[in-house]
Amino acid sequence: MVGAIASGGARAVARCEALAVPPFSDSAEGLTRTYLSPAYHAAQEQITAWMTEAGMAVRRDAAANLIGRYEGCEAGAPALVIGSHIDSVRNAGAYDGPLGIMLGIEAVAALCSSSTRLPFAIEVYAFGDEEGSRFPAAMLSSRAVAGTLDPAALEVADRDGMRLGDLLDLAAYPSAVRRAGDVVAYLEAHIEQGPVLEAEGLAVGTVTGIAAQLRFEIGLSGMAGHAGTTAMGLRRDAVAGMAEMVLAAESVATAGPPDLVATVGVVEVPSGAANVIAGRSRFTLDVRAGDAGLRDRAADEVLRRFRAIAGRRDLGLSVRQVHDLPASPCDPALTDLLDAATVEAGHKPFRLVSGAGHDAMIMAALCPTAMLFLRCKGGVSHNPAEHVEPADAEAALVVMSGFIRRLGAKCDA
Amino acid sequence: MVGAIASGGARAVARCEALAVPPFSDSAEGLTRTYLSPAYHAAQEQITAWMTEAGMAVRRDAAANLIGRYEGCEAGAPALVIGSHIDSVRNAGAYDGPLGIMLGIEAVAALCSSSTRLPFAIEVYAFGDEEGSRFPAAMLSSRAVAGTLDPAALEVADRDGMRLGDLLDLAAYPSAVRRAGDVVAYLEAHIEQGPVLEAEGLAVGTVTGIAAQLRFEIGLSGMAGHAGTTAMGLRRDAVAGMAEMVLAAESVATAGPPDLVATVGVVEVPSGAANVIAGRSRFTLDVRAGDAGLRDRAADEVLRRFRAIAGRRDLGLSVRQVHDLPASPCDPALTDLLDAATVEAGHKPFRLVSGAGHDAMIMAALCPTAMLFLRCKGGVSHNPAEHVEPADAEAALVVMSGFIRRLGAKCDA
Repeated sequence: MVGAIASGGARAVARCEALAVPPFSDSAEGLTRTYLSPAYHAAQEQITAWMTEAGMAVRRDAAANLIGRYEGCEAGAPALVIGSHIDSVRNAGAYDGPLGIMLGIEAVAALCSSSTRLPFAIEVYAFGDEEGSRFPAAMLSSRAVAGTLDPAALEVADRDGMRLGDLLDLAAYPSAVRRAGDVVAYLEAHIEQGPVLEAEGLAVGTVTGIAAQLRFEIGLSGMAGHAGTTAMGLRRDAVAGMAEMVLAAESVATAGPPDLVATVGVVEVPSGAANVIAGRSRFTLDVRAGDAGLRDRAADEVLRRFRAIAGRRDLGLSVRQVHDLPASPCDPALTDLLDAATVEAGHKPFRLVSGAGHDAMIMAALCPTAMLFLRCKGGVSHNPAEHVEPADAEAALVVMSGFIRRLGAKCDA
Repeated sequence: MVGAIASGGARAVARCEALAVPPFSDSAEGLTRTYLSPAYHAAQEQITAWMTEAGMAVRRDAAANLIGRYEGCEAGAPALVIGSHIDSVRNAGAYDGPLGIMLGIEAVAALCSSSTRLPFAIEVYAFGDEEGSRFPAAMLSSRAVAGTLDPAALEVADRDGMRLGDLLDLAAYPSAVRRAGDVVAYLEAHIEQGPVLEAEGLAVGTVTGIAAQLRFEIGLSGMAGHAGTTAMGLRRDAVAGMAEMVLAAESVATAGPPDLVATVGVVEVPSGAANVIAGRSRFTLDVRAGDAGLRDRAADEVLRRFRAIAGRRDLGLSVRQVHDLPASPCDPALTDLLDAATVEAGHKPFRLVSGAGHDAMIMAALCPTAMLFLRCKGGVSHNPAEHVEPADAEAALVVMSGFIRRLGAKCDA
């Protein structure tokens, strides 16, 4: 049994690596797999084969999530959902998302090979749209499952003008919803994407909750002008104003506690040219903290500084809030179960907050959730250098299997 | 005579406005007319009609410049070239470029209508590629005429991958060259694109020379990472580093004399996403001053600060110099002629440096050059709000006609 689980963890890692290259990536070099792209469909086809091999019945829902179901003692029983996402950011690592799915498949494969049936079914969900790297929206597909999707959020188009409605039936999309009575709990395993577990020398950690996030789109308008003839003092330069705001956001976050972060990840100068003072610029601002109050106070201070900078530079400032995700605590009883399974597997139990958003925080509206983090090298993620040791994936698989067994015992009791 | 000239100036302004909309613009809203675009060809067709009407024989050279020739007393005599450009930046004003061509046509029209022939021919050149807004190169077409074109510079492609060689015969391109013996002098009228003449209350000014320019392409490489999970102190953020560099360039230029300017007009974050710390960024840096020494000292200081910022933030820094245009003085004798014509026209003579590059600085390699600036509202240029008063265009036309007459007298003497 131990041998089978150990090889399961290594196989999960190897499968993530196999999914990081064409045809499972849309780019020839590096991994980019966006929602509903050709690589996305190719990955679903491959994962269907792996799910089937692990003993699951596979279907695709109206939100293009892929779902493998392993029945419990009684057919049609409510399910423990084990999920994560198969879409990626641009130029991504191999593990952010797929690893949680691969570990779910391995957990089921181990049950199936020992003919173990539980008081609940297990469904492994491969969610479609967690990163929001294709459409200007994120977690649409898990929102649909959790029943928290505003249908208006589906009216989006990608950079090339392709609308989500050109690719899927938007009227049917919300039918991906699950009833609360059909879902026992949600478990997600995911790489930490940060340096804490590595610093602690631990393979896995129990997530207590997901940080609160705010996201804004900022627009600046100044006065376009000739780069050679407009004296510095007469400029209303939308690039220089943006630069000052980027540093203001960085400064506010750096002055706060370690879990407070602020990021400008997109900057754009439409019609920019080397010999033209920019009249317009746009950028994104992302602010997160374990506590929503801290996050809100920091965002308020950043926006206060933005307004002061815009005023001093005579720039028009537009601020659009595009996300407000509250802090999402995991279920305390399930968190205790994960800790107990961690101890049983011979590891020190350790709890931490997730700075990143995950499908788990969406699924919390539907059922109690639990989340297990895996150590990743250097805390690096959203980067081709993302790396997970097979031994750590094996440790996670043992903890997940222990969690499933304990949850089964609890349901029986 | 005064009446005819006055209406000529107003007509030149009206024609610039007529050329600022489709089919003479490639964009439905605002003016964008890039080298060899459909709008470019449409504008050449219209200008051909106006040149013909003004009494000129019209031809197009191998660099796609349009040339109208008005013979002097003897056919085939060397020519005074009056030129400017018909290409524009993106979202441009109506006058930057075309006004100099329209005023040249009006000057010839006035000579033709009074059957005046001079000791030299006049050729009005509508240059094609001054702004460099389509291909990553500028002033290719005037370089070809002046005989200073490096054929390797023609190996360029636009944003859509269209190569210059797909549009023109590159082998023939340098045959647009003129022999020094065929050209008497070069005169260019252009809007100031700055606020000095307006501040002085003057319609026109004599340009003593064109500022020295340096242009760089800067690349930064840090470490891409997850926006939610990478603590501020662990980041190697290519956007934050770029922001600090933009402000450093602004700070160095602001601390210098008024003719020193530094501009970051293009900023790019490849694969940027709101939830990803940028691993790479790129931007342009343009530094200009009336004096090359001042310019070079300022650029050195800016680059010194860039290196310090990159070092402190652990970012890779690449610096590529893409332009080094020396200060280009206008011909002193022709500058005196322009001043004399200005006094004769009833205006106060006033001399200034051009912070912008112009075809005149290229043509200086071929022949003595003179340049006349016209006041533009608020100093605004490279912007749809660019505005020239018809009365100022008329003043410029009177000065140009006086300059031509005086040059003719000088040639006769």
